[in-house]
Amino acid sequence: MQQGLVGIGVVGYGYWGPNLVRNFMNSQVARVVAVSDLDPVRLAATKRLYPAVETTSRFRDLLTNPEIDAVAIATPVHTHYELTLAALKAGKHVLVEKPLAQTSEQVLSLIEEAERRRLTLMVDHTFLYTPAVQKIRQLITEDALGKIYYYNGVRASLGLFQSDVNVIWDLAVHDISIIQYLFDEEPIAVSATGACHIAGAPENMAHIALFFQSNCVAHVSVNWLSPIKVRQSFVGGSRKMIVYDDLEPTEKIKIYDKGITVNGSAERAHQLRIGYRAGDMWAPHLAATEALQTEAEHFVDCVRSGKSPASNGITGLRVIEILEAASRSVTAQGNPVRLKRWHRTGEMAL
Amino acid sequence: MQQGLVGIGVVGYGYWGPNLVRNFMNSQVARVVAVSDLDPVRLAATKRLYPAVETTSRFRDLLTNPEIDAVAIATPVHTHYELTLAALKAGKHVLVEKPLAQTSEQVLSLIEEAERRRLTLMVDHTFLYTPAVQKIRQLITEDALGKIYYYNGVRASLGLFQSDVNVIWDLAVHDISIIQYLFDEEPIAVSATGACHIAGAPENMAHIALFFQSNCVAHVSVNWLSPIKVRQSFVGGSRKMIVYDDLEPTEKIKIYDKGITVNGSAERAHQLRIGYRAGDMWAPHLAATEALQTEAEHFVDCVRSGKSPASNGITGLRVIEILEAASRSVTAQGNPVRLKRWHRTGEMAL
Amino acid sequence: MQQGLVGIGVVGYGYWGPNLVRNFMNSQVARVVAVSDLDPVRLAATKRLYPAVETTSRFRDLLTNPEIDAVAIATPVHTHYELTLAALKAGKHVLVEKPLAQTSEQVLSLIEEAERRRLTLMVDHTFLYTPAVQKIRQLITEDALGKIYYYNGVRASLGLFQSDVNVIWDLAVHDISIIQYLFDEEPIAVSATGACHIAGAPENMAHIALFFQSNCVAHVSVNWLSPIKVRQSFVGGSRKMIVYDDLEPTEKIKIYDKGITVNGSAERAHQLRIGYRAGDMWAPHLAATEALQTEAEHFVDCVRSGKSPASNGITGLRVIEILEAASRSVTAQGNPVRLKRWHRTGEMAL
Amino acid sequence: MQQGLVGIGVVGYGYWGPNLVRNFMNSQVARVVAVSDLDPVRLAATKRLYPAVETTSRFRDLLTNPEIDAVAIATPVHTHYELTLAALKAGKHVLVEKPLAQTSEQVLSLIEEAERRRLTLMVDHTFLYTPAVQKIRQLITEDALGKIYYYNGVRASLGLFQSDVNVIWDLAVHDISIIQYLFDEEPIAVSATGACHIAGAPENMAHIALFFQSNCVAHVSVNWLSPIKVRQSFVGGSRKMIVYDDLEPTEKIKIYDKGITVNGSAERAHQLRIGYRAGDMWAPHLAATEALQTEAEHFVDCVRSGKSPASNGITGLRVIEILEAASRSVTAQGNPVRLKRWHRTGEMAL
Repeated sequence: MQQGLVGIGVVGYGYWGPNLVRNFMNSQVARVVAVSDLDPVRLAATKRLYPAVETTSRFRDLLTNPEIDAVAIATPVHTHYELTLAALKAGKHVLVEKPLAQTSEQVLSLIEEAERRRLTLMVDHTFLYTPAVQKIRQLITEDALGKIYYYNGVRASLGLFQSDVNVIWDLAVHDISIIQYLFDEEPIAVSATGACHIAGAPENMAHIALFFQSNCVAHVSVNWLSPIKVRQSFVGGSRKMIVYDDLEPTEKIKIYDKGITVNGSAERAHQLRIGYRAGDMWAPHLAATEALQTEAEHFVDCVRSGKSPASNGITGLRVIEILEAASRSVTAQGNPVRLKRWHRTGEMAL
Repeated sequence: MQQGLVGIGVVGYGYWGPNLVRNFMNSQVARVVAVSDLDPVRLAATKRLYPAVETTSRFRDLLTNPEIDAVAIATPVHTHYELTLAALKAGKHVLVEKPLAQTSEQVLSLIEEAERRRLTLMVDHTFLYTPAVQKIRQLITEDALGKIYYYNGVRASLGLFQSDVNVIWDLAVHDISIIQYLFDEEPIAVSATGACHIAGAPENMAHIALFFQSNCVAHVSVNWLSPIKVRQSFVGGSRKMIVYDDLEPTEKIKIYDKGITVNGSAERAHQLRIGYRAGDMWAPHLAATEALQTEAEHFVDCVRSGKSPASNGITGLRVIEILEAASRSVTAQGNPVRLKRWHRTGEMAL
Repeated sequence: MQQGLVGIGVVGYGYWGPNLVRNFMNSQVARVVAVSDLDPVRLAATKRLYPAVETTSRFRDLLTNPEIDAVAIATPVHTHYELTLAALKAGKHVLVEKPLAQTSEQVLSLIEEAERRRLTLMVDHTFLYTPAVQKIRQLITEDALGKIYYYNGVRASLGLFQSDVNVIWDLAVHDISIIQYLFDEEPIAVSATGACHIAGAPENMAHIALFFQSNCVAHVSVNWLSPIKVRQSFVGGSRKMIVYDDLEPTEKIKIYDKGITVNGSAERAHQLRIGYRAGDMWAPHLAATEALQTEAEHFVDCVRSGKSPASNGITGLRVIEILEAASRSVTAQGNPVRLKRWHRTGEMAL
Repeated sequence: MQQGLVGIGVVGYGYWGPNLVRNFMNSQVARVVAVSDLDPVRLAATKRLYPAVETTSRFRDLLTNPEIDAVAIATPVHTHYELTLAALKAGKHVLVEKPLAQTSEQVLSLIEEAERRRLTLMVDHTFLYTPAVQKIRQLITEDALGKIYYYNGVRASLGLFQSDVNVIWDLAVHDISIIQYLFDEEPIAVSATGACHIAGAPENMAHIALFFQSNCVAHVSVNWLSPIKVRQSFVGGSRKMIVYDDLEPTEKIKIYDKGITVNGSAERAHQLRIGYRAGDMWAPHLAATEALQTEAEHFVDCVRSGKSPASNGITGLRVIEILEAASRSVTAQGNPVRLKRWHRTGEMAL
């Protein structure tokens, strides 16, 4: 595989699958061999756009196809574990739509299976591959923000209600993967609250606080019942602060040279004098690259080189442990849930 | 007092006091008799603008002045209880800057003192008197929104750090008074998280969730360390949803005729079919009235008529019970704190 | 042709051609038979996406293909006349990218050719087919705005510089076609100014005023050298006013119930008392339909039924007469140029 | 006068007068001696706020008051000439609300009168003294923008209709004074169009193009009948471009590192290849200084030092010549009007 194009099979041609196919098609180092979906209408759509791509309603056909080196899975969440495991067992590298699986136990066994077979297991945390998030990470790595105080994210819109996962697993998963990518520190506990306004449906609204050993905090608000779409995150540091609005067409990131100055000592708190510092705002130019294109190239590169992806199985596991803890905390009306301690091993970097 | 102008004494001429003086000056039914402040520079400023107003550095002078019927208190929070109690004991009606006092016990004793003496005790929850909040309340009262699902508020800016209260008591108090004003239901529990980024200073960032008996939820995010000013609340209902942005110069309230439709029954959740309904947006014209003018008139009217203010002592007490519970929950990293049950007695209305 | 699918040939597969192909592909009543382009790379792209479509580098092949009933032309402006004329002479109906041709004389001869052969000649004024512009037209038709006072449009961005037309023919053409579609009245004169900042390139900036017999005025500002993209038009009426911002993702049209009231008579101008009326703002929900889909269906419908398109040859002629007059006025630094008088015949309506 | 406070008399206490009084009050080097107005209600308002200030309904009282060194005139436009001339003849320095007078002849005689008596004559072009405009001027002076291509300004709102001047003299005057302040070059001709929608009232809408010897152009659109307030100007240069939005609370100026690159020569225009350059955006922090405070200090400084103001009589004259030319061009439907040539003498600078 070091030589030649990496052969890709795509499972699921619903909402996200077509994006995967298109981006792997555009890659110079991959080719889409086959697409599987249970719906013949979707397969016909594939065939119409890409007549050279094989289509099948049997997922198994992909696993037995020797031209397929790697499988990209874009099916409902409850099928991720089973399909991924089968693909790994068939010797295929796997890229899985987020979240990686429904439980951390499942993810652990997928990681073990991939490691045993020395296969690439990557989770599709698309936002990590956006120019905006990569720019923020670069600014943090360069220490441009100073000490990080907080991440505050809001992700809301009207819909799309999922039937097999709640809004945390659907939307907050993005912010949690971003937080993990940006910060050097792992959260130690989670407090979350949520609400379900449609009887029989999963929670459609949640607020999640992540605690860190330092006094950094992260907070994520997600909502499937918002009248307007919101995709906004604030990242506050001692030196600079960022407002990241993903709905802005070009100026997605604004960096504010603002902050406070403290005179006096903490011992004499009543004498603390806090000053406010207001400076310029700066919006760096961002490349217009589509995140999924960058991600598809990264996946193929990892498959060929054996490198570990920026969003590898461990990354997916940590995210899911946080999602699980958040869901438990929601049930307990915000009662905090401790997280397993992780050593920061293996730099996440593209 | 039924006849003639209500004589007003204002205590504290710092940030808020000048606004109180100006608005009582503009009232046709009140007159500002005297202003007290410890700072002679501020008193000189008062004198320059309003030469007819008496100035004094002794608060007691206001209590003994028979021309003063009512006292408006705009001093630091830790002085509210003592000053208010003294004023009531001197037979003066009192309007106190928010929060009413530092503890619910203090507020209770103020309420009792006011009731015993049949004096008006009003807390300055200014936002209740804005045309925007009154319009939202009207829409809810008319049942235009349908079943209320949530209130989501964000209130952030760079500063002003307070030394005697944290950001919850400084900023969240506004949203909590608004929530109480808008909703027919009292919250039953609070989960809150917070962070302090400046050693020796109080919490500068907090996230507060309020639970209700129904599945309505309220959430408030407050932040003294935001690079930009945010004053935005979402109110979601089954029929309509509101985005209230207090920084908009004219269109502060936008009402969206949007929502979801549910087919299928909760029993067969996997068959639930959720549809999305998108309709018009509407921004009602709001009067340009200054909230404090409306509030000053309301206070004077209550003093003269004996009516209970929309933001009376009980209102202030409930708000403070929530602030206390939120602060306790912050200490326990989100562990929820139950609230005392209140019977909804006495309609709050102007 | 009354029965069966209308066979379409598309000429030019550069920037706009792919959109034409895609939308005719989606139509239930048309099919794309062939695409011609001089560039073999583009033809290969066509073939890859649509293997069933014939490709050719010889435009003439489309004219001799009996399966092709109608031709859609998306080539550089200086080729429009020749290609359209040839297509009409070959008995094909024609849809031409805007502007219809380079001179009004050319357009006149195309109109005559189409009429002689009873063929549909339609110009691709896409904006007429947007839900936003159709909504504005509906509001005007229903007299919701009252007497129309003005149209003020700004259309600006960085690029794309054209080599064969100036910014008026490239951008202002959109506003002029919109103005013509919205208003019942034809302009009688044009005053325009422009500037060329790149030696050797055509004008990259222009301001165009259209005068009407009534006191209605229209003004269009276009700019290829703007740091940000602007697509905003104001339509003012005596009863209501509209702000149409095409860059807004959903609320493209905002209707303001604002205006003035006049007391006193014009004879005693010094006694005129003007009052200001501020009411609600309303943003009607607009369908998410792609304009070009609506337009493609309309073209096919006209081809089949013989109806005259909303953007027919006469429409295209009037627009080009205004573009010509504007260009002449630019040369004369704003000196107004009279327009030919047209009788408003033939309602433009979808 | 070199020593001591400059004594100020203010004529007219309507819309703008109170701002003048407040800002001269705040000055450390001036004091407001007296205010005159024909309306006793306004004089009472003055007296209430500033009991130490003398009030009079007779303008002449200010001229004979020896404590008054300088007069600030904020009365209707048609009175400017007569009042300013009388003040100068009485030996008073004069600051006049814009526009300086109703005709350039009047302005010329005022300039002569002031020069003869060596008195300061300054026109209140407030925008020149805003931190935003001063920042733009600094950027241009430092050559940060490169060659200046254009100024495009829009100034619109609902009202306020003036009875004695049209919208050009009321609103465009601001942009024209800004253009004059920013650019090194004087315009050589004007083309303008306008419309009057209210019978008996002056033009309420106008579009003005200014031509320069270079290929720089300026354009100003003004409108008293806009549903929303707009205060936006674009300044385009070969290196950088500015968007100046005066309604933004803090980021009023955004500087875009954007532009085009040209390959090929003008001689072979058809081979011109234009590229687009997109870089960062930067919003410099601006002081929150009130423009009128800066301007009042500047006036007093000029009075004391004999320096010529940044907005002196000559400045006011040039602006009015442009307003006159624009009004003539409006009457001729855009026919361009030549302007007198001025030598750029005397740097305008604070």
